[in-house]
Amino acid sequence: MRTTNLIFLLLSMLAPSVTAQEGPFSLVPVPASVQAGEGQLPITPTFAVAVTGNTEVRLQHAVEIFTEHLHKQTGMFPVDIGLTDVSKSNLVIRTEAISKDVQEPGEDESYALEVTSTRATLSAANTLGAMRGLETFLQLVEVTPEGFAVPAVTIRDQPRFAWRGLMIDVSRHFIPLDVLKRNLDAMAAVKMNVFHWHLSDDQGFRVESKRFPNLQQMGSDGLYYTQEEVRELIAYARDRGIRVVPEFDMPGHTTAWFVGYPELGSKPGTYSIARTWGIFDTAMDPTQERTYRFLDEFIGEMAKLFPDAYFHIGGDEVNGKQWDANQKIQAFMRLHSLKNDQDLQAYFNTRVQELVRRHGKTMVGWDEILRPDLPKTIVVQSWRGQGSLAEASKQGYRGLLSYGYYLDLMWPAARHYAVDPLGDGASDLTAEQRSRILGGEACMWSEYASPENIDARIWPRAAVIAERLWSAPSVQDVPSMYARTEIMRRRLDLLGLTHDSVYPVMLRRIAGSDDSGPVRVLADVVEPVKDYAREELATTPATSSTPLNRVVDTARPESATAREFSEMVDQFVAGKADDATKNRMRALLTIWRDNQTKLQPLATKSFLLQEVTPISQNLSALAAGGLQAMDFVSKGLAASDDWTKELLALAEQAKKPQAQLLLMMVPPIEKLVQAASAR
Amino acid sequence: MRTTNLIFLLLSMLAPSVTAQEGPFSLVPVPASVQAGEGQLPITPTFAVAVTGNTEVRLQHAVEIFTEHLHKQTGMFPVDIGLTDVSKSNLVIRTEAISKDVQEPGEDESYALEVTSTRATLSAANTLGAMRGLETFLQLVEVTPEGFAVPAVTIRDQPRFAWRGLMIDVSRHFIPLDVLKRNLDAMAAVKMNVFHWHLSDDQGFRVESKRFPNLQQMGSDGLYYTQEEVRELIAYARDRGIRVVPEFDMPGHTTAWFVGYPELGSKPGTYSIARTWGIFDTAMDPTQERTYRFLDEFIGEMAKLFPDAYFHIGGDEVNGKQWDANQKIQAFMRLHSLKNDQDLQAYFNTRVQELVRRHGKTMVGWDEILRPDLPKTIVVQSWRGQGSLAEASKQGYRGLLSYGYYLDLMWPAARHYAVDPLGDGASDLTAEQRSRILGGEACMWSEYASPENIDARIWPRAAVIAERLWSAPSVQDVPSMYARTEIMRRRLDLLGLTHDSVYPVMLRRIAGSDDSGPVRVLADVVEPVKDYAREELATTPATSSTPLNRVVDTARPESATAREFSEMVDQFVAGKADDATKNRMRALLTIWRDNQTKLQPLATKSFLLQEVTPISQNLSALAAGGLQAMDFVSKGLAASDDWTKELLALAEQAKKPQAQLLLMMVPPIEKLVQAASAR
Repeated sequence: MRTTNLIFLLLSMLAPSVTAQEGPFSLVPVPASVQAGEGQLPITPTFAVAVTGNTEVRLQHAVEIFTEHLHKQTGMFPVDIGLTDVSKSNLVIRTEAISKDVQEPGEDESYALEVTSTRATLSAANTLGAMRGLETFLQLVEVTPEGFAVPAVTIRDQPRFAWRGLMIDVSRHFIPLDVLKRNLDAMAAVKMNVFHWHLSDDQGFRVESKRFPNLQQMGSDGLYYTQEEVRELIAYARDRGIRVVPEFDMPGHTTAWFVGYPELGSKPGTYSIARTWGIFDTAMDPTQERTYRFLDEFIGEMAKLFPDAYFHIGGDEVNGKQWDANQKIQAFMRLHSLKNDQDLQAYFNTRVQELVRRHGKTMVGWDEILRPDLPKTIVVQSWRGQGSLAEASKQGYRGLLSYGYYLDLMWPAARHYAVDPLGDGASDLTAEQRSRILGGEACMWSEYASPENIDARIWPRAAVIAERLWSAPSVQDVPSMYARTEIMRRRLDLLGLTHDSVYPVMLRRIAGSDDSGPVRVLADVVEPVKDYAREELATTPATSSTPLNRVVDTARPESATAREFSEMVDQFVAGKADDATKNRMRALLTIWRDNQTKLQPLATKSFLLQEVTPISQNLSALAAGGLQAMDFVSKGLAASDDWTKELLALAEQAKKPQAQLLLMMVPPIEKLVQAASAR
Repeated sequence: MRTTNLIFLLLSMLAPSVTAQEGPFSLVPVPASVQAGEGQLPITPTFAVAVTGNTEVRLQHAVEIFTEHLHKQTGMFPVDIGLTDVSKSNLVIRTEAISKDVQEPGEDESYALEVTSTRATLSAANTLGAMRGLETFLQLVEVTPEGFAVPAVTIRDQPRFAWRGLMIDVSRHFIPLDVLKRNLDAMAAVKMNVFHWHLSDDQGFRVESKRFPNLQQMGSDGLYYTQEEVRELIAYARDRGIRVVPEFDMPGHTTAWFVGYPELGSKPGTYSIARTWGIFDTAMDPTQERTYRFLDEFIGEMAKLFPDAYFHIGGDEVNGKQWDANQKIQAFMRLHSLKNDQDLQAYFNTRVQELVRRHGKTMVGWDEILRPDLPKTIVVQSWRGQGSLAEASKQGYRGLLSYGYYLDLMWPAARHYAVDPLGDGASDLTAEQRSRILGGEACMWSEYASPENIDARIWPRAAVIAERLWSAPSVQDVPSMYARTEIMRRRLDLLGLTHDSVYPVMLRRIAGSDDSGPVRVLADVVEPVKDYAREELATTPATSSTPLNRVVDTARPESATAREFSEMVDQFVAGKADDATKNRMRALLTIWRDNQTKLQPLATKSFLLQEVTPISQNLSALAAGGLQAMDFVSKGLAASDDWTKELLALAEQAKKPQAQLLLMMVPPIEKLVQAASAR
């Protein structure tokens, strides 16, 4: 018998079953209006879909994807997708019009879904709304004593924001097409509608240019998307109601461009692909005309490849050092009365904006591009905050929020969930100013994400950002969010996302053994350090070839075990824990207390476990203290000062990051200790 | 809520981790010769490979695949695949010659691998041998206290049989290209070298014919491979040292052909794709010339598409009913003195063999094609047994064994492992006759396999067949086989096979809940019924649209839990179980005894659980009895006759298949009960 299986079994038995709230069904995002009906619509192997009104190919694809996902959810094989015969169908899709040739922000995504015990009717203005409604329908499918079924319900729904995006950085680590595709499936499942593709940066230029082939040939280590693959991804996204906005970051973050085209840079000489990250000195030379001739041709080529009306030019984090050091550039600035680097970048942006516009696109850029000399048509994406966004909006610019939505910062879902594009610094805007805030984007920067673990970095947390951008601002119930996210997590498993399935695989690699149970016990209660602490705590700076196989790369951004334990502790110290809760607390504490003994034999064999041994020791010692604390409290005894002092000192020490990890049990156990000493 | 006692008990039972035998390392298949050395070769992120001797593209691809798999195993990113600089490399590949343009059976696959603490050297006659050696190298990579490393070792290795195949039936259920690709990865990992692609049958014609497009357009429900996809798969296989042998089954199993080309059939009229399975009456008309004109053109087209020198024409299971009922055919038989249907099929085979030969291929077919009038060049694939194979060999025909290797029959790995192509009826062959037995093929017929669960049906059991066909016949240690297979199972996880990861996903679907623990407890101790019992026990015949989402589709072909429990019981009744073993037995029995109570609330909600409730009840009752039996034995007491009789009656009843499942705990618990009553 494998111990791993027993421990797995045990851990799964300890999980409380989740019950979701926010309306009668566990939908993500929560729809605008849901009314439960009576009865249920059976979903059988002969389930048939009819389409009336518009029958554009895109809608037919949407129905095919729907049946494929219905198959994945239920295991039933759809033999027949009747697209016309309403009388024999179980789901009728009625749309009024086809969708636009190129999907636009603000295109109607509303839908109405009415399910009775005999038929479901999905009505929408166009294909996009039908797509959103089909995803809602899939979320309603449940197993019942009689078979699969959808409960009777009437739903009316539309998004709060028109722009609900996910940005993926494919430069720091290349992310293959199939990984992107499954992430698009997940985006569609939570009604996100923009894939922002961060295609170039210092560490890699990731798309084929036929006009300037050295870009990918010299700037990508061979890891780039061909134009055919780009078209394939765009078509894949379109079939899921998702726009694809390319980003080519400039004039900074451009080292990879200069490997093949050093003449674009502000410093003479040769360049090589960056292997580390941060803010580099490299920047395009904004003073020479050949830069703009190059960009004119390049943007022209890419504008044809990417049909979306928006074109992201990055524009962030230029430190100006190469400009300051270049006499020719300094002379240019004096000649044109450009007082500082910001002025010079504004000059560059104005020139680039003109090129982007000439090729039929609207320019998008990060906060830094915002300067009054740019036309009001551009869109500003803010990593600085709602205040910055509000400022842009007051000046008449449209904007997107990404501040608060950086998935790579390892925040808990609730923290992302609390960030509203119209909150904080944007809460005092007029209706007109508010209307210029188009939505937001979750951002996945990939310094520490690989094709292996990126799903687990994005999901399920991106789903709560999707909900913030779709659902009414009043949707705020955090326990409901967590419960529904848990259900969403499982749905994404069925779609083929690897956020869950990779966890045991990576743990076994760390353990160097099938018997990875003790590693899992530890990994379940730690989280990677937050914000940019991983950089700060690194003994040697990471590079693109640093293996991402450590516990910090495996542990989830948010420990559900720790969160649930913490909630139980709160109940316990408030004297409100029932026996079942107390038993579960003791069970968990016992597992943790005993875990170091079990981990030790593995740690002697695996270098990947050695760095977490101090954390494991802290966990064991603190859990032992936690059990004692529960005894004190239960017996109504007060702990001694020495005991308390010793444990609090241990907790204080255990709070410090180790191996770039945080031990999430410390604060609740501290609470237990304090409760014990207060008696 | 679960008792903490159980948790303590479970955690106290640390099983010894598996230790493999058959040489010092856990390799699958076991190499011909392995000598452990001193020290180890570190595998670091700067690990570099150099290639000397032949540098054909295929070898370069093999090295790229190797580094990709090394990355998957270790999480390290290979930046640099230096292909020439020996002095800076950690692994040097020396090959003497390039491989053949089209891979041939019997092409040299031998290799020698020497690993020291400073360098690994892989020597092979050609690229194929290098590929096999690279897989061995990957299997040697392990985690150590210092990092990843390969232990110092000297290995000389070559296969016992030249033809080591896996057949996948893509007709009963269509299997998409990506699923096939990952199975090719797994095949390469265990050194299999033939992918036998069963492309047509009554239920679907799965490949694009440009000459006869109705074949796929009318005979596949749109589920077929384009010729471009076929070429893509063949190239993928070639890069892994795998030949692709297509099978177009004829003259029977041809219903799908006749949908588009009814004139080929022996019965006038129209045909539709078969939705059930078994042996149908449909067969090509072997008496009309247009059949051969069609086949001539068709085989000509496919012979160009598939470069392999072998071409499989099926030839199995013709019941002759359409021939018997057709007056024209009967007249033809009389005219040509064909006495019976077998004679007529032999006539057909002779004609087809001539077409296959004319298009430059060697014909392969199932047992039934063996008739003395066919030339000795053909190859016979035997589903009947070694006797049938030996008979062919004695007549001068070459042969392949598939009897005993049918993965769809749900046999335990040990049963497949015991089947040797040169065993049983083939054990008395002369050396020359033995040389005509080329090897064998594992077969995966897909009546009950879908893209979702097919990996779990094939792996890891196919690995033991791969070992039987590669390793020396003396490699027979079953415990070692199971231990090494377990390690292989995990390696296949890292390659992206879904045999493991799909299990919890399917269990949660059955449970209709994240809380699928009790379903897992049950599913872990049942197995699908064996051989063709699933057909026999079906209340209504299955069709291609029958959902494959039940417990019988999810449960593994072989229950490791049951096997291990059974071994513990054997120790226990022999009085040789130590305390740890006894504790583990009690823990398992306790989990099983209590499981029905936990399953019941789920079963009331999910139709997929209702059919297994009687099994769950039996499990609980028998486990309770097993615990009592252990008490009797431990206390040296004899159980009463009534108690014994009641439990044995229960066991007898529990042995009967339910929901097409076998409860695998019954025999060991029976043993416990008998041991208790014998006191």
